[in-house]
Amino acid sequence: MEKRTFIFDGKAKQLYATDDESLVIILYKDDVSAYNGVKKSLIQNKGILNNKISEIIYKTLENNGIKTHFVKRLDDRNQLCKKITVFPLEFIVRNVIAGSLARRLDIEEGIRPANTIFEICLKSDFLNDPLINEHHAVALHIISYEELKLIEQISMQINKVVTQLFDDAGIDVIDMKLEFGYDEHHNLLLADEISPDTARFWDKKTKNKLDRDRFKRDMGKLEESYSEILTRLTI
Amino acid sequence: MEKRTFIFDGKAKQLYATDDESLVIILYKDDVSAYNGVKKSLIQNKGILNNKISEIIYKTLENNGIKTHFVKRLDDRNQLCKKITVFPLEFIVRNVIAGSLARRLDIEEGIRPANTIFEICLKSDFLNDPLINEHHAVALHIISYEELKLIEQISMQINKVVTQLFDDAGIDVIDMKLEFGYDEHHNLLLADEISPDTARFWDKKTKNKLDRDRFKRDMGKLEESYSEILTRLTI
Repeated sequence: MEKRTFIFDGKAKQLYATDDESLVIILYKDDVSAYNGVKKSLIQNKGILNNKISEIIYKTLENNGIKTHFVKRLDDRNQLCKKITVFPLEFIVRNVIAGSLARRLDIEEGIRPANTIFEICLKSDFLNDPLINEHHAVALHIISYEELKLIEQISMQINKVVTQLFDDAGIDVIDMKLEFGYDEHHNLLLADEISPDTARFWDKKTKNKLDRDRFKRDMGKLEESYSEILTRLTI
Repeated sequence: MEKRTFIFDGKAKQLYATDDESLVIILYKDDVSAYNGVKKSLIQNKGILNNKISEIIYKTLENNGIKTHFVKRLDDRNQLCKKITVFPLEFIVRNVIAGSLARRLDIEEGIRPANTIFEICLKSDFLNDPLINEHHAVALHIISYEELKLIEQISMQINKVVTQLFDDAGIDVIDMKLEFGYDEHHNLLLADEISPDTARFWDKKTKNKLDRDRFKRDMGKLEESYSEILTRLTI
Protein backbone atom coordinates (compact mmCIF):
# COMPACT_ATOMS: atom_id res chain seq x y z
CA MET A 1 0.00 0.00 0.00
CA GLU A 2 1.58 3.23 -1.17
CA LYS A 3 1.23 6.45 0.77
CA ARG A 4 0.03 9.15 -1.60
CA THR A 5 -1.49 12.58 -1.12
CA PHE A 6 -1.26 14.27 2.22
CA ILE A 7 -4.81 14.99 3.45
CA PHE A 8 -4.70 16.45 6.95
CA ASP A 9 -2.29 17.39 9.72
CA GLY A 10 -3.83 16.81 13.15
CA LYS A 11 -2.47 17.61 16.61
CA ALA A 12 -0.88 14.15 17.01
CA LYS A 13 -1.45 12.37 13.69
CA GLN A 14 -1.30 12.95 9.95
CA LEU A 15 -3.66 11.51 7.38
CA TYR A 16 -2.65 10.34 3.88
CA ALA A 17 -4.61 9.00 0.94
CA THR A 18 -3.58 5.65 -0.57
CA ASP A 19 -4.05 4.18 -4.04
CA ASP A 20 -7.15 2.46 -2.67
CA GLU A 21 -9.96 5.01 -2.30
CA SER A 22 -11.45 3.18 0.67
CA LEU A 23 -8.22 3.17 2.71
CA VAL A 24 -6.07 5.82 4.37
CA ILE A 25 -2.74 5.80 6.15
CA ILE A 26 -2.51 7.38 9.59
CA LEU A 27 0.94 8.54 10.69
CA TYR A 28 1.51 8.85 14.45
CA LYS A 29 3.58 11.93 15.32
CA ASP A 30 5.66 12.66 18.40
CA ASP A 31 3.81 15.95 18.96
CA VAL A 32 1.96 16.20 22.23
CA SER A 33 -0.41 19.02 23.11
CA ALA A 34 -2.93 20.02 25.76
CA TYR A 35 -5.51 22.69 26.54
CA ASN A 36 -6.72 23.00 22.95
CA GLY A 37 -3.17 23.24 21.58
CA VAL A 38 -2.04 26.02 23.95
CA LYS A 39 0.62 23.77 25.53
CA LYS A 40 2.77 21.83 23.05
CA SER A 41 5.90 19.73 22.96
CA LEU A 42 7.63 16.82 21.24
CA ILE A 43 8.09 13.52 23.09
CA GLN A 44 10.56 11.20 21.42
CA ASN A 45 9.04 7.89 20.27
CA LYS A 46 5.56 8.85 21.47
CA GLY A 47 4.10 8.27 18.01
CA ILE A 48 5.69 4.82 17.79
CA LEU A 49 4.38 3.85 21.22
CA ASN A 50 0.82 5.09 20.56
CA ASN A 51 0.75 3.39 17.16
CA LYS A 52 1.60 0.06 18.83
CA ILE A 53 -0.62 0.53 21.90
CA SER A 54 -3.62 1.50 19.76
CA GLU A 55 -2.92 -1.49 17.47
CA ILE A 56 -3.13 -3.90 20.41
CA ILE A 57 -6.37 -2.28 21.66
CA TYR A 58 -8.08 -2.18 18.25
CA LYS A 59 -7.11 -5.79 17.47
CA THR A 60 -8.53 -6.86 20.84
CA LEU A 61 -11.72 -4.90 20.11
CA GLU A 62 -12.05 -6.52 16.66
CA ASN A 63 -11.53 -9.95 18.27
CA ASN A 64 -14.43 -9.08 20.56
CA GLY A 65 -16.77 -8.24 17.71
CA ILE A 66 -16.41 -4.46 17.75
CA LYS A 67 -16.04 -2.92 14.31
CA THR A 68 -13.21 -0.40 13.96
CA HIS A 69 -11.47 1.49 11.14
CA PHE A 70 -8.18 -0.31 11.92
CA VAL A 71 -6.83 -2.56 9.15
CA LYS A 72 -3.17 -3.14 10.09
CA ARG A 73 -0.04 -1.48 11.39
CA LEU A 74 2.35 -0.90 8.47
CA ASP A 75 5.50 0.05 10.37
CA ASP A 76 6.65 1.99 13.45
CA ARG A 77 4.60 5.10 12.75
CA ASN A 78 2.04 4.17 10.08
CA GLN A 79 -1.32 2.47 10.30
CA LEU A 80 -3.56 1.41 7.45
CA CYS A 81 -7.20 2.26 8.23
CA LYS A 82 -10.55 2.31 6.49
CA LYS A 83 -11.50 5.75 5.23
CA ILE A 84 -14.48 7.00 7.17
CA THR A 85 -16.57 10.10 7.66
CA VAL A 86 -16.29 10.89 11.35
CA PHE A 87 -19.04 12.61 13.38
CA PRO A 88 -17.75 15.94 14.74
CA LEU A 89 -18.39 14.63 18.24
CA GLU A 90 -16.21 13.23 21.00
CA PHE A 91 -17.70 10.45 23.11
CA ILE A 92 -16.18 10.10 26.54
CA VAL A 93 -16.56 7.07 28.79
CA ARG A 94 -15.60 7.61 32.42
CA ASN A 95 -15.10 4.91 35.05
CA VAL A 96 -13.37 7.17 37.56
CA ILE A 97 -13.77 10.94 38.08
CA ALA A 98 -10.72 12.82 36.76
CA GLY A 99 -9.62 15.83 34.75
CA SER A 100 -12.16 18.32 33.44
CA LEU A 101 -15.10 16.55 35.08
CA ALA A 102 -13.48 16.74 38.53
CA ARG A 103 -12.92 20.47 38.04
CA ARG A 104 -16.32 21.09 36.45
CA LEU A 105 -18.34 19.43 39.23
CA ASP A 106 -15.83 20.04 42.05
CA ILE A 107 -15.45 16.31 42.78
CA GLU A 108 -12.20 14.86 44.08
CA GLU A 109 -10.19 13.12 41.36
CA GLY A 110 -10.07 9.36 41.84
CA ILE A 111 -13.64 8.76 43.00
CA ARG A 112 -15.26 5.78 41.25
CA PRO A 113 -19.04 6.24 40.87
CA ALA A 114 -21.37 3.23 40.84
CA ASN A 115 -22.40 3.99 37.26
CA THR A 116 -20.36 4.49 34.09
CA ILE A 117 -20.48 8.08 32.84
CA PHE A 118 -21.00 8.68 29.12
CA GLU A 119 -20.53 12.16 27.68
CA ILE A 120 -20.92 13.81 24.30
CA CYS A 121 -18.75 16.81 23.41
CA LEU A 122 -18.96 18.94 20.29
CA LYS A 123 -15.64 18.90 18.42
CA SER A 124 -14.90 22.57 18.06
CA ASP A 125 -11.57 24.21 18.82
CA PHE A 126 -13.36 27.58 18.62
CA LEU A 127 -15.92 26.61 21.30
CA ASN A 128 -13.37 24.57 23.28
CA ASP A 129 -15.12 21.19 22.71
CA PRO A 130 -18.12 21.93 24.95
CA LEU A 131 -20.10 19.23 26.72
CA ILE A 132 -23.47 18.82 25.03
CA ASN A 133 -26.25 16.26 25.29
CA GLU A 134 -28.08 14.07 22.78
CA HIS A 135 -30.75 16.72 22.11
CA HIS A 136 -28.14 19.34 21.19
CA ALA A 137 -26.36 16.91 18.85
CA VAL A 138 -29.65 16.15 17.09
CA ALA A 139 -30.67 19.83 16.98
CA LEU A 140 -27.33 20.61 15.33
CA HIS A 141 -28.20 18.08 12.55
CA ILE A 142 -25.05 16.09 13.35
CA ILE A 143 -26.59 12.73 14.24
CA SER A 144 -29.89 10.99 15.05
CA TYR A 145 -31.18 9.81 18.44
CA GLU A 146 -30.96 6.21 17.17
CA GLU A 147 -27.31 6.58 16.14
CA LEU A 148 -26.47 8.13 19.52
CA LYS A 149 -28.17 5.27 21.37
CA LEU A 150 -26.19 2.75 19.32
CA ILE A 151 -22.90 4.60 19.86
CA GLU A 152 -23.55 4.71 23.61
CA GLN A 153 -24.13 0.93 23.63
CA ILE A 154 -20.97 0.25 21.57
CA SER A 155 -18.97 2.61 23.80
CA MET A 156 -20.02 0.62 26.86
CA GLN A 157 -18.91 -2.61 25.15
CA ILE A 158 -15.58 -1.00 24.20
CA ASN A 159 -15.14 0.11 27.80
CA LYS A 160 -15.72 -3.44 28.99
CA VAL A 161 -13.18 -4.95 26.58
CA VAL A 162 -10.49 -2.29 27.14
CA THR A 163 -10.98 -2.41 30.91
CA GLN A 164 -10.48 -6.20 30.86
CA LEU A 165 -7.39 -5.90 28.64
CA PHE A 166 -5.80 -3.29 30.93
CA ASP A 167 -6.95 -5.05 34.09
CA ASP A 168 -4.81 -8.02 33.05
CA ALA A 169 -1.88 -5.57 32.69
CA GLY A 170 -2.42 -4.14 36.19
CA ILE A 171 -3.75 -0.84 34.86
CA ASP A 172 -7.04 0.96 35.59
CA VAL A 173 -8.89 2.59 32.69
CA ILE A 174 -10.01 5.91 34.19
CA ASP A 175 -11.67 7.38 31.11
CA MET A 176 -11.31 7.42 27.34
CA LYS A 177 -12.34 9.51 24.38
CA LEU A 178 -13.90 7.70 21.42
CA GLU A 179 -14.77 8.83 17.91
CA PHE A 180 -17.07 7.11 15.45
CA GLY A 181 -17.86 7.37 11.78
CA TYR A 182 -19.24 5.62 8.71
CA ASP A 183 -17.23 3.89 6.00
CA GLU A 184 -18.28 3.91 2.33
CA HIS A 185 -20.68 1.02 2.95
CA HIS A 186 -22.35 2.89 5.86
CA ASN A 187 -20.80 0.62 8.48
CA LEU A 188 -20.57 2.40 11.83
CA LEU A 189 -16.92 2.05 12.93
CA LEU A 190 -14.81 3.11 15.88
CA ALA A 191 -12.34 5.67 14.52
CA ASP A 192 -9.28 7.56 15.77
CA GLU A 193 -7.04 5.90 18.37
CA ILE A 194 -7.23 4.67 21.96
CA SER A 195 -3.92 5.48 23.60
CA PRO A 196 -2.49 7.28 26.64
CA ASP A 197 -2.96 10.45 24.55
CA THR A 198 -6.74 10.01 24.44
CA ALA A 199 -7.45 7.97 27.58
CA ARG A 200 -6.39 8.05 31.22
CA PHE A 201 -4.56 4.99 32.54
CA TRP A 202 -3.45 4.62 36.17
CA ASP A 203 -1.31 1.88 37.65
CA LYS A 204 -3.68 -0.29 39.70
CA LYS A 205 -1.43 -0.50 42.77
CA THR A 206 0.47 2.78 42.89
CA LYS A 207 -2.27 4.90 41.17
CA ASN A 208 0.60 6.41 39.15
CA LYS A 209 -0.60 8.24 36.06
CA LEU A 210 0.63 6.60 32.84
CA ASP A 211 -0.98 9.00 30.36
CA ARG A 212 -0.92 12.47 28.84
CA ASP A 213 -1.81 14.03 32.22
CA ARG A 214 1.95 13.64 32.96
CA PHE A 215 2.54 16.20 30.21
CA LYS A 216 -0.44 18.42 31.11
CA ARG A 217 0.69 18.56 34.74
CA ASP A 218 4.46 18.72 34.11
CA MET A 219 5.10 15.39 35.85
CA GLY A 220 7.74 14.23 33.34
CA LYS A 221 8.52 10.63 32.31
CA LEU A 222 5.92 10.59 29.54
CA GLU A 223 7.87 8.31 27.19
CA GLU A 224 8.70 5.92 30.07
CA SER A 225 5.02 5.73 31.07
CA TYR A 226 3.73 5.09 27.56
CA SER A 227 6.51 2.52 27.14
CA GLU A 228 5.48 0.87 30.41
CA ILE A 229 1.92 0.49 29.09
CA LEU A 230 3.14 -1.08 25.83
CA THR A 231 5.42 -3.48 27.69
CA ARG A 232 2.67 -4.59 30.05
CA LEU A 233 0.16 -5.04 27.19
CA THR A 234 2.69 -7.07 25.19
CA ILE A 235 3.70 -9.53 27.91
CA MET B 1 -53.74 29.37 56.70
CA GLU B 2 -51.42 31.35 58.93
CA LYS B 3 -47.92 32.28 57.82
CA ARG B 4 -45.48 31.23 60.54
CA THR B 5 -41.72 30.72 60.61
CA PHE B 6 -39.57 32.18 57.92
CA ILE B 7 -37.64 29.32 56.26
CA PHE B 8 -35.65 30.63 53.31
CA ASP B 9 -34.95 33.80 51.33
CA GLY B 10 -34.39 33.06 47.65
CA LYS B 11 -33.42 35.39 44.82
CA ALA B 12 -37.06 36.12 43.86
CA LYS B 13 -39.18 34.35 46.49
CA GLN B 14 -39.37 33.71 50.22
CA LEU B 15 -40.51 30.51 51.87
CA TYR B 16 -42.55 30.32 55.09
CA ALA B 17 -43.80 27.43 57.20
CA THR B 18 -47.51 27.22 58.00
CA ASP B 19 -49.42 25.59 60.88
CA ASP B 20 -49.84 22.56 58.58
CA GLU B 21 -46.55 20.64 58.34
CA SER B 22 -47.29 19.53 54.79
CA LEU B 23 -47.85 23.06 53.43
CA VAL B 24 -45.70 26.12 52.91
CA ILE B 25 -46.35 29.69 51.82
CA ILE B 26 -44.30 31.13 48.98
CA LEU B 27 -44.01 34.91 48.84
CA TYR B 28 -43.20 36.44 45.46
CA LYS B 29 -40.76 39.35 45.77
CA ASP B 30 -40.10 42.25 43.39
CA ASP B 31 -36.38 41.43 43.32
CA VAL B 32 -35.02 40.56 39.91
CA SER B 33 -31.51 39.24 39.33
CA ALA B 34 -29.34 37.76 36.59
CA TYR B 35 -25.95 36.18 36.01
CA ASN B 36 -25.94 34.25 39.29
CA GLY B 37 -27.02 37.30 41.30
CA VAL B 38 -24.31 39.61 39.93
CA LYS B 39 -26.90 41.95 38.38
CA LYS B 40 -29.81 42.89 40.67
CA SER B 41 -32.70 45.30 40.82
CA LEU B 42 -36.27 45.79 42.05
CA ILE B 43 -39.15 45.87 39.58
CA GLN B 44 -42.36 47.21 41.06
CA ASN B 45 -45.23 44.70 41.06
CA LYS B 46 -43.09 41.96 39.50
CA GLY B 47 -43.86 39.61 42.42
CA ILE B 48 -47.59 40.20 42.09
CA LEU B 49 -47.50 39.58 38.33
CA ASN B 50 -45.41 36.38 38.60
CA ASN B 51 -47.61 35.07 41.40
CA LYS B 52 -50.66 35.45 39.18
CA ILE B 53 -49.02 34.24 35.95
CA SER B 54 -47.62 31.14 37.68
CA GLU B 55 -51.05 30.50 39.25
CA ILE B 56 -52.71 30.43 35.82
CA ILE B 57 -50.02 28.11 34.43
CA TYR B 58 -50.05 25.69 37.39
CA LYS B 59 -53.88 25.53 37.43
CA THR B 60 -53.84 24.75 33.69
CA LEU B 61 -51.20 22.06 34.26
CA GLU B 62 -53.26 20.51 37.10
CA ASN B 63 -56.32 20.56 34.82
CA ASN B 64 -54.24 18.60 32.32
CA GLY B 65 -53.30 15.92 34.81
CA ILE B 66 -49.85 17.19 35.75
CA LYS B 67 -49.16 17.07 39.48
CA THR B 68 -47.69 20.26 40.95
CA HIS B 69 -46.94 21.66 44.39
CA PHE B 70 -49.45 24.49 43.83
CA VAL B 71 -52.46 24.54 46.18
CA LYS B 72 -53.89 28.06 45.81
CA ARG B 73 -53.00 31.71 45.55
CA LEU B 74 -53.70 33.40 48.92
CA ASP B 75 -53.36 37.05 47.93
CA ASP B 76 -51.33 39.35 45.68
CA ARG B 77 -47.94 38.01 46.73
CA ASN B 78 -48.55 34.73 48.56
CA GLN B 79 -49.14 31.22 47.31
CA LEU B 80 -50.00 28.15 49.36
CA CYS B 81 -48.00 25.14 48.15
CA LYS B 82 -47.29 21.58 49.19
CA LYS B 83 -44.03 21.22 51.06
CA ILE B 84 -41.63 19.22 48.97
CA THR B 85 -38.01 18.13 48.87
CA VAL B 86 -36.67 19.49 45.62
CA PHE B 87 -33.89 17.83 43.60
CA PRO B 88 -30.87 20.19 43.36
CA LEU B 89 -31.29 20.13 39.58
CA GLU B 90 -32.72 22.50 37.02
CA PHE B 91 -34.50 20.94 34.06
CA ILE B 92 -34.64 23.13 30.99
CA VAL B 93 -36.94 22.58 28.04
CA ARG B 94 -36.06 24.51 24.89
CA ASN B 95 -38.27 24.95 21.82
CA VAL B 96 -36.18 27.74 20.31
CA ILE B 97 -32.44 28.42 20.67
CA ALA B 98 -31.79 31.41 22.95
CA GLY B 99 -29.65 32.69 25.79
CA SER B 100 -26.82 30.59 27.18
CA LEU B 101 -27.32 27.80 24.62
CA ALA B 102 -26.99 30.22 21.70
CA ARG B 103 -23.72 31.54 23.19
CA ARG B 104 -22.44 28.11 24.21
CA LEU B 105 -22.90 26.49 20.80
CA ASP B 106 -22.55 29.69 18.74
CA ILE B 107 -26.02 29.31 17.19
CA GLU B 108 -28.10 32.31 16.21
CA GLU B 109 -30.83 33.11 18.74
CA GLY B 110 -34.31 32.41 17.39
CA ILE B 111 -33.62 29.22 15.47
CA ARG B 112 -36.24 26.53 16.12
CA PRO B 113 -34.77 23.01 15.89
CA ALA B 114 -36.92 20.09 14.75
CA ASN B 115 -36.57 18.42 18.15
CA THR B 116 -37.29 19.68 21.67
CA ILE B 117 -34.11 20.14 23.70
CA PHE B 118 -34.09 18.89 27.30
CA GLU B 119 -31.22 19.84 29.61
CA ILE B 120 -30.18 19.04 33.16
CA CYS B 121 -28.17 21.59 35.14
CA LEU B 122 -26.69 21.14 38.59
CA LYS B 123 -28.05 23.78 40.98
CA SER B 124 -24.87 25.28 42.36
CA ASP B 125 -24.16 28.99 42.65
CA PHE B 126 -20.52 28.08 43.33
CA LEU B 127 -20.20 26.12 40.07
CA ASN B 128 -22.50 28.50 38.16
CA ASP B 129 -25.25 25.89 37.55
CA PRO B 130 -23.27 23.81 35.04
CA LEU B 131 -24.89 21.73 32.31
CA ILE B 132 -24.61 18.06 33.21
CA ASN B 133 -26.13 14.88 31.81
CA GLU B 134 -28.11 12.02 33.35
CA HIS B 135 -24.97 10.01 34.15
CA HIS B 136 -23.46 12.87 36.14
CA ALA B 137 -26.68 13.37 38.10
CA VAL B 138 -26.77 9.66 38.99
CA ALA B 139 -23.02 9.58 39.81
CA LEU B 140 -23.60 12.50 42.19
CA HIS B 141 -26.23 10.39 44.05
CA ILE B 142 -28.87 13.05 43.37
CA ILE B 143 -31.39 11.00 41.42
CA SER B 144 -31.89 7.67 39.61
CA TYR B 145 -32.00 7.00 35.86
CA GLU B 146 -35.67 6.01 36.23
CA GLU B 147 -36.60 9.26 37.98
CA LEU B 148 -34.77 11.26 35.30
CA LYS B 149 -36.61 9.43 32.52
CA LEU B 150 -39.93 10.17 34.22
CA ILE B 151 -39.06 13.84 34.76
CA GLU B 152 -38.08 14.17 31.10
CA GLN B 153 -41.44 12.72 30.04
CA ILE B 154 -43.39 14.99 32.41
CA SER B 155 -41.34 18.00 31.25
CA MET B 156 -42.34 17.29 27.66
CA GLN B 157 -46.01 17.10 28.71
CA ILE B 158 -45.66 20.39 30.61
CA ASN B 159 -44.08 21.97 27.54
CA LYS B 160 -47.02 20.85 25.44
CA VAL B 161 -49.63 22.26 27.84
CA VAL B 162 -47.82 25.57 28.45
CA THR B 163 -47.09 26.01 24.74
CA GLN B 164 -50.79 25.54 23.95
CA LEU B 165 -51.85 27.96 26.72
CA PHE B 166 -49.44 30.65 25.47
CA ASP B 167 -50.18 29.93 21.83
CA ASP B 168 -53.77 30.96 22.49
CA ALA B 169 -52.39 34.19 23.96
CA GLY B 170 -50.25 34.90 20.88
CA ILE B 171 -47.02 34.13 22.71
CA ASP B 172 -44.23 31.67 21.84
CA VAL B 173 -42.70 29.63 24.66
CA ILE B 174 -38.98 29.76 23.82
CA ASP B 175 -37.68 27.80 26.82
CA MET B 176 -38.44 27.22 30.47
CA LYS B 177 -36.72 26.05 33.61
CA LEU B 178 -38.51 23.42 35.70
CA GLU B 179 -37.84 22.02 39.15
CA PHE B 180 -39.22 18.83 40.65
CA GLY B 181 -39.43 17.26 44.07
CA TYR B 182 -41.24 14.79 46.30
CA ASP B 183 -43.97 15.60 48.83
CA GLU B 184 -44.30 13.71 52.12
CA HIS B 185 -46.20 10.89 50.39
CA HIS B 186 -43.41 10.50 47.77
CA ASN B 187 -45.51 12.03 45.01
CA LEU B 188 -43.29 13.52 42.30
CA LEU B 189 -44.48 17.12 41.84
CA LEU B 190 -43.56 20.09 39.68
CA ALA B 191 -42.15 22.70 42.07
CA ASP B 192 -41.05 26.34 41.90
CA GLU B 193 -42.76 28.68 39.43
CA ILE B 194 -43.19 29.07 35.69
CA SER B 195 -43.10 32.77 34.92
CA PRO B 196 -41.27 35.28 32.74
CA ASP B 197 -38.55 35.12 35.41
CA THR B 198 -37.87 31.43 34.72
CA ALA B 199 -39.00 31.04 31.10
CA ARG B 200 -38.57 32.95 27.86
CA PHE B 201 -41.73 34.24 26.19
CA TRP B 202 -41.72 36.08 22.86
CA ASP B 203 -44.67 37.77 21.18
CA LYS B 204 -45.62 35.52 18.26
CA LYS B 205 -45.92 38.32 15.71
CA THR B 206 -43.36 40.94 16.72
CA LYS B 207 -40.89 38.48 18.36
CA ASN B 208 -40.69 41.04 21.19
CA LYS B 209 -39.19 39.61 24.36
CA LEU B 210 -41.69 39.57 27.25
CA ASP B 211 -39.42 38.03 29.89
CA ARG B 212 -36.45 38.56 32.21
CA ASP B 213 -34.11 38.96 29.20
CA ARG B 214 -35.45 42.55 29.09
CA PHE B 215 -33.72 43.06 32.44
CA LYS B 216 -30.59 41.05 31.57
CA ARG B 217 -30.12 43.01 28.36
CA ASP B 218 -31.20 46.43 29.71
CA MET B 219 -34.19 46.63 27.36
CA GLY B 220 -36.51 48.22 29.94
CA LYS B 221 -40.31 47.82 30.21
CA LEU B 222 -40.10 44.69 32.35
CA GLU B 223 -43.24 45.40 34.38
CA GLU B 224 -45.17 46.29 31.21
CA SER B 225 -44.10 43.03 29.53
CA TYR B 226 -44.98 40.82 32.49
CA SER B 227 -48.27 42.70 32.78
CA GLU B 228 -48.93 42.13 29.07
CA ILE B 229 -48.48 38.37 29.57
CA LEU B 230 -50.91 38.34 32.51
CA THR B 231 -53.49 40.34 30.58
CA ARG B 232 -53.28 38.06 27.56
CA LEU B 233 -53.52 34.90 29.69
CA THR B 234 -56.52 36.31 31.60
CA ILE B 235 -58.63 37.30 28.61
